[in-house]
Amino acid sequence: MIARFFAHARFALVLTLLVSGTAAAQPPADCRPNPLNIPGAPYPCVYPDNRVTFRVAAPDAQKVRIRLGPGFDMSKGPDGLWYVTTPPQVVGFHYYTLSIDGAVVSDPATRTFFGSGFYNSAVEVPEPGTDGDYYHAKDVPRGQVRQQRYYSKVTGTWRHVYVYTPPGYDSDGKAKFPVLYLLHGWGENEQGWYMQGHVDVIMDNLLAEKKAKPMLIVMDNLNAVKPGESAALYFARGNLTQAVPQPPPAPAAAPAGRAAGPGRGGRGSLASSVFTEMMLTDLMPMVERTFRVAPGRDNRAMAGLSMGGAQTFGTALANLDKFAYLGGFSGSSGGRGGFDPKTANDGVFAEAAAFNKKVKVLFLGIGSMEGPGTKTFSEQLTQAGIKNVYYESPGTAHEWLTWRRSFKEFAPLLFR
Amino acid sequence: MIARFFAHARFALVLTLLVSGTAAAQPPADCRPNPLNIPGAPYPCVYPDNRVTFRVAAPDAQKVRIRLGPGFDMSKGPDGLWYVTTPPQVVGFHYYTLSIDGAVVSDPATRTFFGSGFYNSAVEVPEPGTDGDYYHAKDVPRGQVRQQRYYSKVTGTWRHVYVYTPPGYDSDGKAKFPVLYLLHGWGENEQGWYMQGHVDVIMDNLLAEKKAKPMLIVMDNLNAVKPGESAALYFARGNLTQAVPQPPPAPAAAPAGRAAGPGRGGRGSLASSVFTEMMLTDLMPMVERTFRVAPGRDNRAMAGLSMGGAQTFGTALANLDKFAYLGGFSGSSGGRGGFDPKTANDGVFAEAAAFNKKVKVLFLGIGSMEGPGTKTFSEQLTQAGIKNVYYESPGTAHEWLTWRRSFKEFAPLLFR
Repeated sequence: MIARFFAHARFALVLTLLVSGTAAAQPPADCRPNPLNIPGAPYPCVYPDNRVTFRVAAPDAQKVRIRLGPGFDMSKGPDGLWYVTTPPQVVGFHYYTLSIDGAVVSDPATRTFFGSGFYNSAVEVPEPGTDGDYYHAKDVPRGQVRQQRYYSKVTGTWRHVYVYTPPGYDSDGKAKFPVLYLLHGWGENEQGWYMQGHVDVIMDNLLAEKKAKPMLIVMDNLNAVKPGESAALYFARGNLTQAVPQPPPAPAAAPAGRAAGPGRGGRGSLASSVFTEMMLTDLMPMVERTFRVAPGRDNRAMAGLSMGGAQTFGTALANLDKFAYLGGFSGSSGGRGGFDPKTANDGVFAEAAAFNKKVKVLFLGIGSMEGPGTKTFSEQLTQAGIKNVYYESPGTAHEWLTWRRSFKEFAPLLFR
Repeated sequence: MIARFFAHARFALVLTLLVSGTAAAQPPADCRPNPLNIPGAPYPCVYPDNRVTFRVAAPDAQKVRIRLGPGFDMSKGPDGLWYVTTPPQVVGFHYYTLSIDGAVVSDPATRTFFGSGFYNSAVEVPEPGTDGDYYHAKDVPRGQVRQQRYYSKVTGTWRHVYVYTPPGYDSDGKAKFPVLYLLHGWGENEQGWYMQGHVDVIMDNLLAEKKAKPMLIVMDNLNAVKPGESAALYFARGNLTQAVPQPPPAPAAAPAGRAAGPGRGGRGSLASSVFTEMMLTDLMPMVERTFRVAPGRDNRAMAGLSMGGAQTFGTALANLDKFAYLGGFSGSSGGRGGFDPKTANDGVFAEAAAFNKKVKVLFLGIGSMEGPGTKTFSEQLTQAGIKNVYYESPGTAHEWLTWRRSFKEFAPLLFR
């Protein structure tokens, strides 16, 4: 029976993969395997100058393309495999897919990451020097990321949430902890902050340096629809219950963060979203029943990226009795041009002194390549007397490195 | 900024997916979406008679195939998408991939599952009636599946382990729990028992019915290589440090579990594997330091599927001072034809009475479509006076339904 596993029908395929992955051709020594590759896969690989070489086995295809940024056509090498080397890429985590004779699929050479509503491949271009140390595992005490299933009455489904518990959560059986509710972006899921964001590693490192307070981080799935509704609706409407926006005419090559989105139904649609109802009715009570949670709004924060930032502002600004800390990373509240502090978000900003007393931290993070909208919003808030923290990630776009950095700046401000 | 997330470059792609996934054509009402589909995807779908219809968007491809069992050629429908409906499939979880003009990739319509060393698609054919209830979520107290990173001195890497903790683990801060070390099969990883096996749901359900004792279940990754070795080596050699087996000449269409594997280097190679060394040196001490673990061999079990079963027998039979319960699901110890109880596994079976006293449960599970090897082995053990439990899963092959069922039979026998 030892050998039974070799009888598996998929074995032949894998040998092929292994051969194409290892024996056939190794990349040049200075092209380091993408850290997100499946174990043992030499491609994609990243050069010291951040060029990336991709390789794909597609023996009978007519056209193979890497769908990353503007996209790159591949060409067949003498070994019959398809290759392309891109120009230098921006540092950080980039989703990508393959187009094989028009079929858009993930690259079997990398792990898969849920984004845009399905599982993509990804490449991680390392930051220079020690810049990325904060999201790399070090020899420090480790928290856990727990997967908890729970039933939602609002959606009528079993749901799945990730919860970070800090080192020492188990050994001190009495201590209670503040909670950050942390949301992913459009088309992603509850795995995003862990798989793409390395949020547990960042927190473990911050805690080891005593730069942040120990806290729970609850990472749920924004996909929340009422019984009988299709989840596809969520992806189409961005989880709004009211306005179903028209998509922008964004070509695949559009610079991230530049194209203006469509007009939206205002904050009310987010505040009343299915997610907000589910969060208040099902998620928060489950968390407070299951984990040792410090009570009250002063021990509760909410933040998110992109659509999760918009959701955060929608949910929390309408429920300031429950949240004292807010963060939006590449996504926050309405405004942008027509922001009127007296009327925006049902007038929550109208009395600056009262707002500043209630909201201990209002954090706005953005990548420097995402355009001026968030900076403008921050300035508008400041002009209206609303205290806020503006952080701009240098050289990054609407991508995970912006959000890792934003989180690293935001977390130390919490629960002080 | 609310609309910022719509500016994302991938939005156009996803709209395409959504359109092809929802608006273009819904499957017939009696073809139910595969439970493993990404949210909102109507295909693949499963008919009541277990036929499965697949759909793939590959506009410019010449040949598209579903790589499931013997494989199925697809043909283009009037909507320009590729379709095929298979004959009725065996119930349970089946990995599959697409071949698009010769490129083997996962189907973007489903979640992805690590098997054969990369991320596959999968289809789940429901069991009739209530047969599958034991692995479906019910309204019972829920355990957690915790993701824990730890450093291994043996491999020189940070590793990632899944640990199931039963309901009530946190609320009773004093109780200690026995531990089952549970291994995946060749080409899979630490996610397998959770993602493919639903092990936490099975345990939660067994516990709610008081059919099993509360326990921790530690699910690590068999991929363990020494510093400087490539992980590809692990996949090629099945994690053996000594013998590097030759692959069998198995065509992709070979019936699972039928083809005889190659001769192997005997048990010694598994007992001395890098995994065993890593487990004893790094994993077990970390688990006993981090979780509330009941001490001693009587509180320790080890089991695994396929290669994980072989690894279990290799590791545990050589370390019976540490384990009192053993399980192999579609994979166990050497033997098969030439089994000699006096000499096999360094003679551990030679004194039956002593063995039976030490090993409280020796469990052998197999699918009825996998051939007679495991039954023969069980009979040989019985003839040699070695008590063992033989379980045969009706109608299933070398696949996850065999292993879910085996686990359901095995877990209630532990720690009695």
